[in-house]
Amino acid sequence: MTTQPTTASEPWRDPTADPGERVRALMARMSLREKLAQLYGVWVGIDSGGEMAPHQHEFVDAALDFDDLVRHGIGQLTRVFGTRPVDPLIGAHSLARTQRQIVSSSRFGIPAVVHEECLTGLAAWQATIYPAPLSWGATFDPDLIRRMGERIGQTMRALGVHQGLSPVLDVARDLRWGRVEETIGEDPYLVGTIGSAYVAGLESAGIIATLKHFVGYSASRAGRNLAPVSAGPREIADVLLPPFELALRAGARSVMNAYTDTDGLPSAADASLLTDLLRDTYGFDGTVVADYFSVAFLHRLHGVAADRADAAGQALTAGIDVELPTMDCYGEPLLAAVEGGAVDAAAVDRALERVLRQKCELGLLDADWAPEVPEEIDLDDAESRALAREVAEKSIVLLHNDGTLPLSPGARVAVVGPRADAAGAMLGCYSFPLHVGVHHPDVPFGVSVPTVLEALRPSYDVTYALGCPVTGGDDAGIAEAVAACADASVCVAVLGDRAGLFGGGTSGEGCDAPDLRLPGRQEELLDALLDTGKPVVVVLLSGRPYELSRQLPRLAAVVAGFYPGEEGATALADVLSGRIDPAGRLPVSFPAAGASQPSTYLSAPLGRRSEVSTVDPTPLFPFGHGLSYAPATWLDVSATGSVWPTDGVCRVRVTLRNDHDRETSEVVQVYLHDPVAEVARPERQLIAARRVTLAPGATEVLDIGLHADLTSYTGRAGRRQVDPGDVELRVGTSSEQIVATLHCTLTGPRRHVGFDRVLAPEFSR
Amino acid sequence: MTTQPTTASEPWRDPTADPGERVRALMARMSLREKLAQLYGVWVGIDSGGEMAPHQHEFVDAALDFDDLVRHGIGQLTRVFGTRPVDPLIGAHSLARTQRQIVSSSRFGIPAVVHEECLTGLAAWQATIYPAPLSWGATFDPDLIRRMGERIGQTMRALGVHQGLSPVLDVARDLRWGRVEETIGEDPYLVGTIGSAYVAGLESAGIIATLKHFVGYSASRAGRNLAPVSAGPREIADVLLPPFELALRAGARSVMNAYTDTDGLPSAADASLLTDLLRDTYGFDGTVVADYFSVAFLHRLHGVAADRADAAGQALTAGIDVELPTMDCYGEPLLAAVEGGAVDAAAVDRALERVLRQKCELGLLDADWAPEVPEEIDLDDAESRALAREVAEKSIVLLHNDGTLPLSPGARVAVVGPRADAAGAMLGCYSFPLHVGVHHPDVPFGVSVPTVLEALRPSYDVTYALGCPVTGGDDAGIAEAVAACADASVCVAVLGDRAGLFGGGTSGEGCDAPDLRLPGRQEELLDALLDTGKPVVVVLLSGRPYELSRQLPRLAAVVAGFYPGEEGATALADVLSGRIDPAGRLPVSFPAAGASQPSTYLSAPLGRRSEVSTVDPTPLFPFGHGLSYAPATWLDVSATGSVWPTDGVCRVRVTLRNDHDRETSEVVQVYLHDPVAEVARPERQLIAARRVTLAPGATEVLDIGLHADLTSYTGRAGRRQVDPGDVELRVGTSSEQIVATLHCTLTGPRRHVGFDRVLAPEFSR
Repeated sequence: MTTQPTTASEPWRDPTADPGERVRALMARMSLREKLAQLYGVWVGIDSGGEMAPHQHEFVDAALDFDDLVRHGIGQLTRVFGTRPVDPLIGAHSLARTQRQIVSSSRFGIPAVVHEECLTGLAAWQATIYPAPLSWGATFDPDLIRRMGERIGQTMRALGVHQGLSPVLDVARDLRWGRVEETIGEDPYLVGTIGSAYVAGLESAGIIATLKHFVGYSASRAGRNLAPVSAGPREIADVLLPPFELALRAGARSVMNAYTDTDGLPSAADASLLTDLLRDTYGFDGTVVADYFSVAFLHRLHGVAADRADAAGQALTAGIDVELPTMDCYGEPLLAAVEGGAVDAAAVDRALERVLRQKCELGLLDADWAPEVPEEIDLDDAESRALAREVAEKSIVLLHNDGTLPLSPGARVAVVGPRADAAGAMLGCYSFPLHVGVHHPDVPFGVSVPTVLEALRPSYDVTYALGCPVTGGDDAGIAEAVAACADASVCVAVLGDRAGLFGGGTSGEGCDAPDLRLPGRQEELLDALLDTGKPVVVVLLSGRPYELSRQLPRLAAVVAGFYPGEEGATALADVLSGRIDPAGRLPVSFPAAGASQPSTYLSAPLGRRSEVSTVDPTPLFPFGHGLSYAPATWLDVSATGSVWPTDGVCRVRVTLRNDHDRETSEVVQVYLHDPVAEVARPERQLIAARRVTLAPGATEVLDIGLHADLTSYTGRAGRRQVDPGDVELRVGTSSEQIVATLHCTLTGPRRHVGFDRVLAPEFSR
Repeated sequence: MTTQPTTASEPWRDPTADPGERVRALMARMSLREKLAQLYGVWVGIDSGGEMAPHQHEFVDAALDFDDLVRHGIGQLTRVFGTRPVDPLIGAHSLARTQRQIVSSSRFGIPAVVHEECLTGLAAWQATIYPAPLSWGATFDPDLIRRMGERIGQTMRALGVHQGLSPVLDVARDLRWGRVEETIGEDPYLVGTIGSAYVAGLESAGIIATLKHFVGYSASRAGRNLAPVSAGPREIADVLLPPFELALRAGARSVMNAYTDTDGLPSAADASLLTDLLRDTYGFDGTVVADYFSVAFLHRLHGVAADRADAAGQALTAGIDVELPTMDCYGEPLLAAVEGGAVDAAAVDRALERVLRQKCELGLLDADWAPEVPEEIDLDDAESRALAREVAEKSIVLLHNDGTLPLSPGARVAVVGPRADAAGAMLGCYSFPLHVGVHHPDVPFGVSVPTVLEALRPSYDVTYALGCPVTGGDDAGIAEAVAACADASVCVAVLGDRAGLFGGGTSGEGCDAPDLRLPGRQEELLDALLDTGKPVVVVLLSGRPYELSRQLPRLAAVVAGFYPGEEGATALADVLSGRIDPAGRLPVSFPAAGASQPSTYLSAPLGRRSEVSTVDPTPLFPFGHGLSYAPATWLDVSATGSVWPTDGVCRVRVTLRNDHDRETSEVVQVYLHDPVAEVARPERQLIAARRVTLAPGATEVLDIGLHADLTSYTGRAGRRQVDPGDVELRVGTSSEQIVATLHCTLTGPRRHVGFDRVLAPEFSR
């Protein structure tokens, strides 16, 4: 085998040549070891001096000898910026140096694909921290999220990152799951439209979006992280897969497997999922990357592989192209397995071709490729902050209001609670400070994150008390909070979660909840505040809904902020003061007290009935709910006709008027109710939602084109079908607040539809 | 069509003729209406005068005109004894009159098959009330439960009942589910062996056992009654179906469908379940009867049928032979559908043939059939009570003991708590008094049911206080309970559930729990009792496990009695006093505080790990756990060899010695651990369990023959297989207390096995 260095003149380096031929030409020259090197990642972080260093992690066996490894090439670099607080420009230079080393030290000189997390913005120090995905869902505004994704992508591209490990397209199924905060909500249409907008934005900036987690993770049993998933193929097809279908159409170029096993089979070893469905049915030609350590988990945790080589063989054969963030399985074990004949070399080539084709697309195979580093960069410039603020503003949900909100100008406000003066309260678990904080408790934030207290101070006469921490606390603290209310005209209690990882929080990856009662002593704190008789406004900053029904009759107002990001407090203060209208709508139901999980609004009739069980599943605040200070007036809802061909479009027109002297907006929601189907269908399911903004006095007509494909579901034979028959279109302001029910009859033959079906409505105004 | 009365001389009445020919001859003579009349039930109860009266129920549209109906014949009579407290002899005479009316008024004179509930004994007034099924499971004693089933069957047969609507073979999956009390436990082997022993007993008395609920009901989402089931085919095959397979082999002649829909498809409309699997694969030739109203539910609740006729057609075609307890769908709607051609008449004949073949077997087609009524009957004679006591004694589980138990002779005992002086505390929700109590709150018990207080009084200096009711209560009551402890040397706190139906209880059908904290203020009561400093013994009488881990470090002892039946208090007093040894073992895990549901011991590795989630699934008391006052000494555990052919038997020998001066018993448990399989398997799973009783000083050798089929599971291809490779046999006293681990290697080719596989081990001593 030749080991001579390649030159820039080799045909596969020619950017004008056919990409397929370039890749084939390159592959023909590579040794097995060089091929495998393209299929795994190395977890290198920048240290504070800007040097690259192997990441120390419990799962990484030993410090890597980078200089030794690099001789075979390195396919992927993971978590370059996300593990240490380093000046991003220094980081970019460091990354560029590493890329140059890879190029100069290996035979073919192929730079690595560089990966980084970007769920709430690029996970790099000093980068803008956007609201977490539940807030994206609450905006019901795909275009806004597309713009956010694009901006995030631009920062990544500027630093030399190629692939963003977002978005999470899991549909929330059990609110106890710690990663609910990373989901966009509990409805596949909402998750799909918002998630694919994010994808479109990221990809428009040239960044590879990674759809995760394919598939089932959110349905882990009892909401416990990584626990097995009990789900049948119909639930998977109709609830869990549609967001991926939408996002693949939006141009996502990578998919990450779910850790979980569904009905016993881990996704990482599931060829029917990763190959038959994803490749053959969906026609996906990007890369499938492993969730971190999940290839080794086939051996170590699932017990379906005898050793690392077996795990590698199963994952590769099933369709995992790239192992991340290590070479535990795709390194030496896979090398030996292929050389020994246990794994087919063709499976390596299949994955390699996908990886190299993507590198070709990225220009990484071009003769003139060189890493670029910006002269200077501000990852949190005014425009980014404004965008973060816009997302926050549109995502804050007013759940309940007895008229106490907006706060009166000059009110004496007692601002209390564990989240009132906590910058971390604004951030999801994948934000840079909290994610890195697992290993570095003293990581500086890198960006300015005002607290609710700070944001309210300029406008009101404010007193403050902690009350109690998120968890723990004592009677004295609660008494102090009560005392802080003594001279106040209103109390704003800021309660909720501490996002974190694996025990570091009350929400976040590995931070699951046994039930939906507020963590720690916060419920006691709230009771004590209510006992003062002062009007109490609860601001909930949390990664999941919590039970508030016992207190609701006494609460003046409830505002859900989820994790609104670095500008969240400013936006919250603007909502509380009335400077802006609360515009968000719930992407997840708020359960009533004692409502057991799992439970989402997307339940078949028998899952929603209260008379057959002492446990009443009726939510306190339903999916889609959100109040406005200036609610729009619904003038008319009509359909073009009651006859709707099974291959045709039904047009729904909604006329809204703003009778107020301020701008307002409404999220028009259309739910499908199918009274008779082959299988038990959700009693109602969102098939269209659109935010309509109305100037003072304005009247707007929203026209919604609903293709019959949107009524499709997976029938008894396991195929997706559009049935003729009567359906109801329930149009309203939430899944429970229906303004008008339109009765339609689908006519014509039953149609079977596939991945090419119409997945989203059309809107015009 | 002829309407002439038939005579006794018709050939189908000849008991010496071939049953198949008799049935075919009869069918050839019947009109469609007469055929359908055989396929539905009429809910008639005996009123207090012994007359039959249509049962008034919310789902029964109107009072039936029995005299009109009877002209076409009536195939089935349901709940004859179980709805009103009537002297059973009067009831038997009333039933006999009704049967004579059916015979004399209809053309063919075919008596009805008479159904009654029999979960905790025949659901008739004055009949022995046996322990509920969790207690059966706790005995780990199939022979005892077979004897109980036989005795129950004998009482049914004596009264003219043909079919018993038991046992429940659902494997508990979520402890919040109200019907957990009706299950035998959370393990399919335990449910299957105990459940099939009950079936063998019932059938040996000539009573048709009805296996329910086929299949999935126990996995309803969030443990909510009737809620949809999320489960894949492998979980169904490996966890939910094996008990049915065992019980069918034990000779069960009827199966009842589950109410629920699994992955969208209701069992009542699932031909792949009721016909392909049950008939074609299992070879079942008995009847499939509908759970009450479940045919109509296809239309009314599941939304898979357009109307009652559609529901009837779907259910009949899928394989429901008999609608119960009404003719809502199989009456006029099905008649019209068959006459109109919407439903194939052959489907009617298929069901009819099964029903008539069973009637033929029962002698109901014989020319000389006449109802028999005993001269006199005692449904709760001494022998029955002794049997009820034996089951109770063997089922009581001592979970924890610091030495306080047995109680010292002459102890001053404060007996407190809502279940201490409640006869109802002994009874499950399907016992006659509680089941009927839904409609008749003042129903007398009919049998003597001593309370724990009454049972302890003769032996101890006893004070009593309620403390609090099961739900509700006040501080004064708790203070009284604390005061009752003042002069006591020990406190026995009897806590738990009130079994009931649909809101009438804290456990039972429709009485689901949002979490596993003790109902009402019982936890407060317990804390107050513990604060007295007196040793507190908790006796838990409940339909499900509850969280006790917060209190455990302070508790002197914990005894689980589940619902031990009419002799339960006597048995409990004997355990507390030490007159008998606590012999029961847990059929369900007791979760630790904050452990979320669903969760059972039968979880794949990732469902059991505590480090990946803040919610730790480790149980407080594991499946199989139970203490003894005189624990057996384990002398030796060995296997015949480590090589185990995939079609062979591995013999495990366990040698136990009783070093005490009283009789003791041990439940030897063998768990399979399969480190590498095609799918994620339960980390451990019970494959054999046997109670060994040892006289004082005795040594016993238990020999267990384990066929390799017992290691089988459903692989990736969806077929059940026995794999070669290494496994561990973990032999011990609970799923967590393993005395010895035997390493075995299965050798030979992979074998695919089916319904004919070996389902149970062989034991010899």
